Amino acid sequence: VAQPPGTLTLIGEKQVEKVTITRIDYNKDTIDESQVENVSTIKPPETKSTVSWINVTGIHDIEVIQNICNNFSIHPLVQEDILNTMHRPKVEELEDYMFIVLKMLYYEEEELNSEHISLILGPNYVISFQEREKDVFAPVRERLHKGRKKLRESGSDYLAYVLVDAIVDHSYFILEDLAEKLEGLEDEIVYDPKPELLQHIHSLKGEMIFLRRAMWPIREMINEMLRSESKLIKKTTNVYFRDVYDHTIGVMETIETFRDIVAGFQDLFLSSVSNKMNEIMKTLTIMATIFIPLTFIAGIYGMNFEFMPELKWKFGYFGIWGFMVVVVIFMFFIFKRKRWF
Amino acid sequence: VAQPPGTLTLIGEKQVEKVTITRIDYNKDTIDESQVENVSTIKPPETKSTVSWINVTGIHDIEVIQNICNNFSIHPLVQEDILNTMHRPKVEELEDYMFIVLKMLYYEEEELNSEHISLILGPNYVISFQEREKDVFAPVRERLHKGRKKLRESGSDYLAYVLVDAIVDHSYFILEDLAEKLEGLEDEIVYDPKPELLQHIHSLKGEMIFLRRAMWPIREMINEMLRSESKLIKKTTNVYFRDVYDHTIGVMETIETFRDIVAGFQDLFLSSVSNKMNEIMKTLTIMATIFIPLTFIAGIYGMNFEFMPELKWKFGYFGIWGFMVVVVIFMFFIFKRKRWF
Amino acid sequence: VAQPPGTLTLIGEKQVEKVTITRIDYNKDTIDESQVENVSTIKPPETKSTVSWINVTGIHDIEVIQNICNNFSIHPLVQEDILNTMHRPKVEELEDYMFIVLKMLYYEEEELNSEHISLILGPNYVISFQEREKDVFAPVRERLHKGRKKLRESGSDYLAYVLVDAIVDHSYFILEDLAEKLEGLEDEIVYDPKPELLQHIHSLKGEMIFLRRAMWPIREMINEMLRSESKLIKKTTNVYFRDVYDHTIGVMETIETFRDIVAGFQDLFLSSVSNKMNEIMKTLTIMATIFIPLTFIAGIYGMNFEFMPELKWKFGYFGIWGFMVVVVIFMFFIFKRKRWF
Amino acid sequence: VAQPPGTLTLIGEKQVEKVTITRIDYNKDTIDESQVENVSTIKPPETKSTVSWINVTGIHDIEVIQNICNNFSIHPLVQEDILNTMHRPKVEELEDYMFIVLKMLYYEEEELNSEHISLILGPNYVISFQEREKDVFAPVRERLHKGRKKLRESGSDYLAYVLVDAIVDHSYFILEDLAEKLEGLEDEIVYDPKPELLQHIHSLKGEMIFLRRAMWPIREMINEMLRSESKLIKKTTNVYFRDVYDHTIGVMETIETFRDIVAGFQDLFLSSVSNKMNEIMKTLTIMATIFIPLTFIAGIYGMNFEFMPELKWKFGYFGIWGFMVVVVIFMFFIFKRKRWF
Amino acid sequence: VAQPPGTLTLIGEKQVEKVTITRIDYNKDTIDESQVENVSTIKPPETKSTVSWINVTGIHDIEVIQNICNNFSIHPLVQEDILNTMHRPKVEELEDYMFIVLKMLYYEEEELNSEHISLILGPNYVISFQEREKDVFAPVRERLHKGRKKLRESGSDYLAYVLVDAIVDHSYFILEDLAEKLEGLEDEIVYDPKPELLQHIHSLKGEMIFLRRAMWPIREMINEMLRSESKLIKKTTNVYFRDVYDHTIGVMETIETFRDIVAGFQDLFLSSVSNKMNEIMKTLTIMATIFIPLTFIAGIYGMNFEFMPELKWKFGYFGIWGFMVVVVIFMFFIFKRKRWF
Repeated sequence: VAQPPGTLTLIGEKQVEKVTITRIDYNKDTIDESQVENVSTIKPPETKSTVSWINVTGIHDIEVIQNICNNFSIHPLVQEDILNTMHRPKVEELEDYMFIVLKMLYYEEEELNSEHISLILGPNYVISFQEREKDVFAPVRERLHKGRKKLRESGSDYLAYVLVDAIVDHSYFILEDLAEKLEGLEDEIVYDPKPELLQHIHSLKGEMIFLRRAMWPIREMINEMLRSESKLIKKTTNVYFRDVYDHTIGVMETIETFRDIVAGFQDLFLSSVSNKMNEIMKTLTIMATIFIPLTFIAGIYGMNFEFMPELKWKFGYFGIWGFMVVVVIFMFFIFKRKRWF
Repeated sequence: VAQPPGTLTLIGEKQVEKVTITRIDYNKDTIDESQVENVSTIKPPETKSTVSWINVTGIHDIEVIQNICNNFSIHPLVQEDILNTMHRPKVEELEDYMFIVLKMLYYEEEELNSEHISLILGPNYVISFQEREKDVFAPVRERLHKGRKKLRESGSDYLAYVLVDAIVDHSYFILEDLAEKLEGLEDEIVYDPKPELLQHIHSLKGEMIFLRRAMWPIREMINEMLRSESKLIKKTTNVYFRDVYDHTIGVMETIETFRDIVAGFQDLFLSSVSNKMNEIMKTLTIMATIFIPLTFIAGIYGMNFEFMPELKWKFGYFGIWGFMVVVVIFMFFIFKRKRWF
Repeated sequence: VAQPPGTLTLIGEKQVEKVTITRIDYNKDTIDESQVENVSTIKPPETKSTVSWINVTGIHDIEVIQNICNNFSIHPLVQEDILNTMHRPKVEELEDYMFIVLKMLYYEEEELNSEHISLILGPNYVISFQEREKDVFAPVRERLHKGRKKLRESGSDYLAYVLVDAIVDHSYFILEDLAEKLEGLEDEIVYDPKPELLQHIHSLKGEMIFLRRAMWPIREMINEMLRSESKLIKKTTNVYFRDVYDHTIGVMETIETFRDIVAGFQDLFLSSVSNKMNEIMKTLTIMATIFIPLTFIAGIYGMNFEFMPELKWKFGYFGIWGFMVVVVIFMFFIFKRKRWF
Repeated sequence: VAQPPGTLTLIGEKQVEKVTITRIDYNKDTIDESQVENVSTIKPPETKSTVSWINVTGIHDIEVIQNICNNFSIHPLVQEDILNTMHRPKVEELEDYMFIVLKMLYYEEEELNSEHISLILGPNYVISFQEREKDVFAPVRERLHKGRKKLRESGSDYLAYVLVDAIVDHSYFILEDLAEKLEGLEDEIVYDPKPELLQHIHSLKGEMIFLRRAMWPIREMINEMLRSESKLIKKTTNVYFRDVYDHTIGVMETIETFRDIVAGFQDLFLSSVSNKMNEIMKTLTIMATIFIPLTFIAGIYGMNFEFMPELKWKFGYFGIWGFMVVVVIFMFFIFKRKRWF
Repeated sequence: VAQPPGTLTLIGEKQVEKVTITRIDYNKDTIDESQVENVSTIKPPETKSTVSWINVTGIHDIEVIQNICNNFSIHPLVQEDILNTMHRPKVEELEDYMFIVLKMLYYEEEELNSEHISLILGPNYVISFQEREKDVFAPVRERLHKGRKKLRESGSDYLAYVLVDAIVDHSYFILEDLAEKLEGLEDEIVYDPKPELLQHIHSLKGEMIFLRRAMWPIREMINEMLRSESKLIKKTTNVYFRDVYDHTIGVMETIETFRDIVAGFQDLFLSSVSNKMNEIMKTLTIMATIFIPLTFIAGIYGMNFEFMPELKWKFGYFGIWGFMVVVVIFMFFIFKRKRWF
């Protein structure tokens, strides 16, 4: 994962076949969406009155990324971070743009994964880099086209807020999924603590660690944005970022609660297994304690000594049966007192 | 749970049939309470000498909420938060009003729940939004009517304090309920660690997590209010908010203590089950250790070898009984030394 | 526990029969102690050269408390806190006096309890409110009478220090009691882990939680006093409060150490029970493993088949004994290798 | 490990045979590498336009270290720390140079170890001290020779950054190794919890503690460098150090995640062993519960009483078989209901 | 332990027979060491050019301590702390001297103890109070006599540093002792988890708590010294105190690492005991599962029914042996599949 500073390399796997670049230029009155084929044509908008949103899907074609970035004079270290899908969420303020790294969580084949998303927020443009095709930004595009006033009238900072908000709110779906998984688990653990459950709990625990690790720095990052006094984010937009921050706090708290619940499940599982074992041992002990003395008595009268007076008594056999019944009743009485039933 | 910014939606369930709006206008000398039917008539009081308290019960009718808020020119994001029953407690200072989100805890059918309560504190009005009909504010209304001097003479900030205080103090009832639940539990765990108890402990643990999650941000929120230098809260009222803050600290400490106690119960349960198992195993081992050798001896003299001299001895049978008694006494001696009795 | 602001109510139980009020007026040269019968006569001293210490034992007579407080123009919220025995330790600076809440720990019938003690420190008076008669302040009174220079020459702030110091130092006795309780416990746990011990450990744990909860805010409170720049506490007295602060840190550290020790005891208990169980199981397994095969062999030759050649051999019986002895020796060898002895 | 201040002693073991000193003097246009034989010739470069990098491999020859340090007038305490291989990573700003202590992690014979590396960053020189020959700096040297512009054009601070970056990035290899070790472990623990695994988990835990202890202070150290306002580090280079800081945060987070995972493994192991035990106990109990009563019945009819009517019945033998089969079926039914199969 | 302010009392035990006082006056050129018999002669040095080090061994003679302190006009509270061997490490700046409390750790009869050491650092003197005779300061005295330049030429602050350093560095010996104790323990725990080991682990844990409690405040104390801007400590000496601070951080980190290791041992022990139990249970279950059915079969043919056809078959006996062998082989096969071997 180590990269010598200055060489651009993709850290992570190629997730889409072809890099797709969409550009939307909009202002209060007009909106224009186009697929970009020639990378060299991507330049910052010339007039201040238009906001440009350039969305890049697929980051494996390093040359494309490098070309776009150079057109916007993005620092080489930032370019490295765009390509480093292992990089943790952060925000960095540079001379005349802001660099934001985010993670979008998703389930794929029952496994929790995260997509590396980078945003570059300039004075009148936003560039977004996505690893995969699944379009979390589609609703944003739709809202732009539908001409929702607030979004169309505001600047690039509001667009950045809408994009960050889309990503943070997406994590609620993951939390709902997890909440459902946690639901029925408790009863199952108490009444039927199977080994499979153990692994299930363990994998849930792993997902919590993953979630926490992805969301915590997002929270930190937005907090840092709030505290920064960058000119790129207008005061009126700050209120909205504060709202996103509230959401990330809510997400973090839910994750912490889930962690506590899952930790509780593990304890519950252990206790439940102990209980089960107790029940098994009780059964064994009751059976053994009742029959071992009886078998001993039967053994006694199975001995072949020549002189054993009881054997010759007329009611010896029935007497011994009676004695055994008394022993069993006595045992039951003992068990009852020890609350084993 | 994700909401596109700008669209108002209720997050949570509808808790009452009909939205009820009560308005109380009061000052030192007069008080006037009325049910409001026409939402559009709700406006801030015109004179500075009167304080208006508008209480809205039921927040599912989005249009009603929106109308009221717009009359008081409340920010759309605040309106969203009023409707988002999942939102955590917080305080937000806006231009000329303060927005407070609170949670009121209550038990319903043995389950701990929380109601989402929002307050808007303006220069001479307070608007309160409640989810449910159960009226935690009834005593406040009564005190207003009874003409208690302090309350009637002070401004909207003191009214806000009284409302927040009512909610925070309500949580003491929950704590008392929990304290009672915890009481008898210890003995039960030590003397009869049944599986049902385990689940009971686990659900108590869950309630603690719930409580903590609801109360912690309330504490934080009041702390923020104390530190804020808003003009809405007079210096003389600040002393009272400090008092509420003290209460929230007290509540948090009690919750932490309860958490420690419940955590201790889980350990106690596990140890108790281990002890029980020990006792069972001891019983089994004593029985087996005594009778297994005896049964073996009986087995020996049940063999059918032609030449077994002991079988022909006159006192063979009684001798063997004697030997067995010696073995049993020896065993008892061993067990005694191992402190198994 | 919820109290509507403004109504004085005792929260807690009545601990003494009758409220007793003692007043000591002293300065460098004179000292005058008297029992106060008429509450309305209690007023702040008129000359600056005298310090008055008014000690109130018993706080259940609300009217008495209210009268005294009103004579010294104490804020109603402070009066509430004096009566709220559940209130946590704190210090509050008001216009011209300081309000201090403390807890004095004591054992009563083997149970750890805390007494609610409030101090009001004015420019030339100290009022102290005690719940119970047990007089932790007796040595202070004695020192005043004995004319110890430092105390008699200093102002009310030094008196307050001496009172706070008396209460903090009292907690050392509790710690010594606990230390003694912890002492012999370890050996008992390792060698004889009885269920009673478990409950004993659990109740010690509870006492630690109680102690911690009482002492922590006292520490915080004295720290706050040190940081405050109140005119009521002279610079020369501050050194003494710093000393008390050091003591509270010491107390807290000892409590933390005890907590660690008790937590260790719980682990030790569990491990010890496991060990015990191991020993029991080993005994059972050794007995069963030795005798089960032997009993089987005896069973074989107890069968009644007509054709069993061994039964007719002359040395069959002794041969079988020999074989059994070999089996037992072999078993012993196996157990030895598994280190079961 | 205690050293009287002022005496230089190597704390740690000698790791190489002979001390090797390499010197590279470079600027934008020229580069010159040489092996230094005569220690006294090592002096700071005279012109400001050249940067000198002096790399010392092997620190056991105290005299050599002392000579070099004295030529650069390094403080005696810094010299001590260069020789103290136990010293934790730190950064220290002195009059005209900066002293950096780092740890490089490596695996040797399956064991995690750390190498003590010290850097001295002067205005136009960097001195690096390595314990071992394994050359983590080789790629840096190569890049210098290949004339990579950025590195050759920048000052000594950029060289220091490149060296620190090389060491931090090296730790990713260790993390990858650990990730691989953790991978297959989970399945093994659940399905075959052997005692060896326990020790394996324990040693992994130890490695985590080791890693954390080595990396945490490196993070702290770089953070301190970022906050320092030393003239030695140019503003443009600071961006690069910020990047290294990001890496150390990433490394720390990965270590924390691994710690959580390994802690989870220990819990998993315990639960897994409990499960295994449960299964064993069930087998035993099923066997015993089925056969103990049957053996008892067989014992009954093995008794030698003279009067036992059943023995003489024609179908007594087959009847008893039938009864036994009924008992077994009944037992199976019970076990089924208890979900033991 | 409670002490009324103003009365000097020794808290702790008398550790030496007789109080010994040594005085060393030194400067760059001369050094003079003498045993002091007459306490009243101990006064601060008159000239600024000489540094006096007064070392007091044994603090049980309160009058002696008081006399010395009064000669140097030491505050009564400081005198109390010198005599309070329970007092935690701290530093306190007073008007013209600094008061330092330290703990020196040592093993006595296999038990970890701490000695209370107090230093008073004046402008040109240092007074040190030791509880016991064992001389940790001997090497310092020797270095003074040997005329080591730095020490002889520097002022009292450097002497104080050397003394503090001697005490901190002494703790490395304790750590080395502990490291040795921890070494072989792991293997023992995994392969032979005896109850004695449990107590051994527990006592190690106790020592960690003790160590941590002694060293943590020393760290805090030196940190406070570094941050203080006292005139008593020269800027050039501050570098040395920073070095001691680094050492205390190192010591604390090692203690934390040891704590983690010992905590891991406890877990390891529990798991190891579980494993052992598993093995025992497996042995029991294998024996019982094999022989119980066989014994049952033997029991069947030991019955005395008149009509049992198998008994009369010629190969009945051998047939039954064959059947038993088949059963045993089948069992082995089952156990193999369950991986019990």
